[in-house]
Amino acid sequence: MRDFLPADKARRERVLAVIRERYRAHGFDEIETPVMEEYSRLHAGMGGDNEKLSFSILKRGMDAEAIRAAADDPAELADLGLRYDLTVPLARFYATNRAQLPTVFRAIQIAPVWRAERPQKGRYRQFVQCDIDIIGDKSSRAEAELMIASLDVLDRLGLQGGSIRVNDRRLLDAVLEHFGFAPEERPQVLISIDKLDKIGFDGVVEDLRRQNLHLRPVEMFASYLRWLFVDRASYEDAGAHVPVSEAAIREMLPPNMPEPVVAHLSDLGETVAAVRGIDVPLVFDPFLVRGMGYYTGTIFELAHPRVRYSLGGGGRYDGMIGRFLGENVPAVGFSIGFERIVDLLRDAQDHDGRSVVLVHDRDTPLGSLLERKALLVEDGVRVRLEQRPKNLKQLLDRALADGYSFWAPVHAMSVFEPLDLRPLDPNGSNRLFL
Amino acid sequence: MRDFLPADKARRERVLAVIRERYRAHGFDEIETPVMEEYSRLHAGMGGDNEKLSFSILKRGMDAEAIRAAADDPAELADLGLRYDLTVPLARFYATNRAQLPTVFRAIQIAPVWRAERPQKGRYRQFVQCDIDIIGDKSSRAEAELMIASLDVLDRLGLQGGSIRVNDRRLLDAVLEHFGFAPEERPQVLISIDKLDKIGFDGVVEDLRRQNLHLRPVEMFASYLRWLFVDRASYEDAGAHVPVSEAAIREMLPPNMPEPVVAHLSDLGETVAAVRGIDVPLVFDPFLVRGMGYYTGTIFELAHPRVRYSLGGGGRYDGMIGRFLGENVPAVGFSIGFERIVDLLRDAQDHDGRSVVLVHDRDTPLGSLLERKALLVEDGVRVRLEQRPKNLKQLLDRALADGYSFWAPVHAMSVFEPLDLRPLDPNGSNRLFL
Repeated sequence: MRDFLPADKARRERVLAVIRERYRAHGFDEIETPVMEEYSRLHAGMGGDNEKLSFSILKRGMDAEAIRAAADDPAELADLGLRYDLTVPLARFYATNRAQLPTVFRAIQIAPVWRAERPQKGRYRQFVQCDIDIIGDKSSRAEAELMIASLDVLDRLGLQGGSIRVNDRRLLDAVLEHFGFAPEERPQVLISIDKLDKIGFDGVVEDLRRQNLHLRPVEMFASYLRWLFVDRASYEDAGAHVPVSEAAIREMLPPNMPEPVVAHLSDLGETVAAVRGIDVPLVFDPFLVRGMGYYTGTIFELAHPRVRYSLGGGGRYDGMIGRFLGENVPAVGFSIGFERIVDLLRDAQDHDGRSVVLVHDRDTPLGSLLERKALLVEDGVRVRLEQRPKNLKQLLDRALADGYSFWAPVHAMSVFEPLDLRPLDPNGSNRLFL
Repeated sequence: MRDFLPADKARRERVLAVIRERYRAHGFDEIETPVMEEYSRLHAGMGGDNEKLSFSILKRGMDAEAIRAAADDPAELADLGLRYDLTVPLARFYATNRAQLPTVFRAIQIAPVWRAERPQKGRYRQFVQCDIDIIGDKSSRAEAELMIASLDVLDRLGLQGGSIRVNDRRLLDAVLEHFGFAPEERPQVLISIDKLDKIGFDGVVEDLRRQNLHLRPVEMFASYLRWLFVDRASYEDAGAHVPVSEAAIREMLPPNMPEPVVAHLSDLGETVAAVRGIDVPLVFDPFLVRGMGYYTGTIFELAHPRVRYSLGGGGRYDGMIGRFLGENVPAVGFSIGFERIVDLLRDAQDHDGRSVVLVHDRDTPLGSLLERKALLVEDGVRVRLEQRPKNLKQLLDRALADGYSFWAPVHAMSVFEPLDLRPLDPNGSNRLFL
């Protein structure tokens, strides 16, 4: 877990403000749920491996006897837990508040989640997730709205050029069925395919051969991969840039893929292309898997040329709301990788041109000093007051690091004279103040 | 704990944005700490009664043996807890990160805290606190900056007319000493005085007489209260509107009050008056106590004519940072009552004039529909798409409740024609759209 110092916190809030404002403009509504959910709900099998990583809240008022009685069933010690994602709470929220929500509900959630990860580089036990979800729309309009809004967020953050890899869980299943994998074999085959980015197509084939799978499907699938990646073109050159269109999907996949799924994806490709122009930001990736078990249809991942890792992702989870509501409701969500985006923007210019540190003497009258400050604040200037220290340079360096652009000395006699503005950054003197 | 639906969440975020922006303009820097702190730190005696209300986090990986061993010491079950305020985490943060902070550090913290309260009206187990603190400045400049910034926040939220009642813990102590209360009697006398608002001066005197206190100090103090509230003027008429000035303080209190304390307060009164004008928003209240045990000097409470309860408060706690740092550092904080302010603004106009619900037919082409939406969003309009339902009125009522101002029907043939805008609120037709 991390403390955020002023410069980091300011950058995080700036990014959050853009995300919040843009998603809102696209018709999404922000909601908030408590950080704690019922223990039983967090351990109902919907969170995958994250359930094991959840922090549990000790029941209040446990006495010695109650604690001893719980020794053989630790679940008895806790009645609540900290959420490990925002999807389980959203499903619970929707089931609780459905009557007060629009039929098609577009939700924004921007909030921390907690996982008891072992400390390692780049993993935190508390981190912020930014999710948008559309509940109650089974058409590809939902996916299109999620994607267009999220690409707009990236644009506004100065990260133009994002693209989204798209696939559908049902296509993956149909492909594996086509090659003859038995239903019970398919989950482990998907785990191998999911490693394609890391170990390449040779690695995947090797991985499949090592497992206790039927030989014929493995070899037929291997031939298909060879055709796609070697005979046809390299994955880098072609596979990674296939548009999401009916022709492209049919060309890359075996015959007899389910018609409605192909139609859903090609509609989506067409719609996003209509809005985002000819430089199509949607790419068909027949080997995108995504780990979470609750996905039932379209799945997608956000990519950006500046980084190799994904900047977000999501998919359809039409079955999950039904677990809470007892009635199936279609749902699709997109989670933008807030922590990764903040890291990516670390070097961005964080200085506020309209900001000044007033360095006053010990004998500057307090009333007129604060009056001067108030007048500047009123004019939209950010103002920090500092009493002149022995080491002025150290103080000014700190102010520059904290995002201030100017400083001005203020003496008892000069409180209301024009400010003698000086840039904090020697290279920044040409920045406009007013 | 509460779910926040779209209209509530939007109002909360709007209020938070004003608070954040204004405090920042006044030279405060936002920081963030993890929601969890060490269990031992949360139970070190600095949180008063709140310590008993804190939620504890179960240690991970407890086996049956470890649980049984913890039966006689429940503290063994937990290594972390959820913070119950933002002051203990701030003191820990400052001690950890001091080298990277300015000498006079002005902190903003806007974050949830948790208390295991019994469910009752108006009390929540999760609620947001908004604190500003100044660490490293023992002068009254610090109090003045806190107060001026907080009054500005109220103004910008449309709550002009706020005022602040001010006192000093050391004056309270000097007054009680003057009347002859022994040091060990003073805490319980303060508890009685703290009820003045509720039970009046007669009630306080009665309350003191019932206790096992020395008789002479009680009766002398009672005469003083009678002089102040009955002979001199009623508390409502005079006591509640005494400016914070040396003359006023000396007039209301017994002689021989500590000079530096009187000077600190009258400087503060003068400074705030210089900035906020002659309609002085600072009031001297010699019977303001404030519950927390860690206050050591100035204490204050924010009042507003629209409500009887306080909208925030704070004080000096010069000893607390030293508990973490091993070196005393002056500190003063102000906590604005976010949840109360949000309640007060519940009836405010929450509609965004530049917002529209596009109601389309089932056969409207998806690509052109989303293109139309994107063009409006680009122009700064908030857009929600809805497919025309059987019950159109219900859908439009929901959109009005969610803060939308207009709707427009969109047909397959009219996707790019001028919008046929219609107000959602029959009384709102004169609102500007573009």
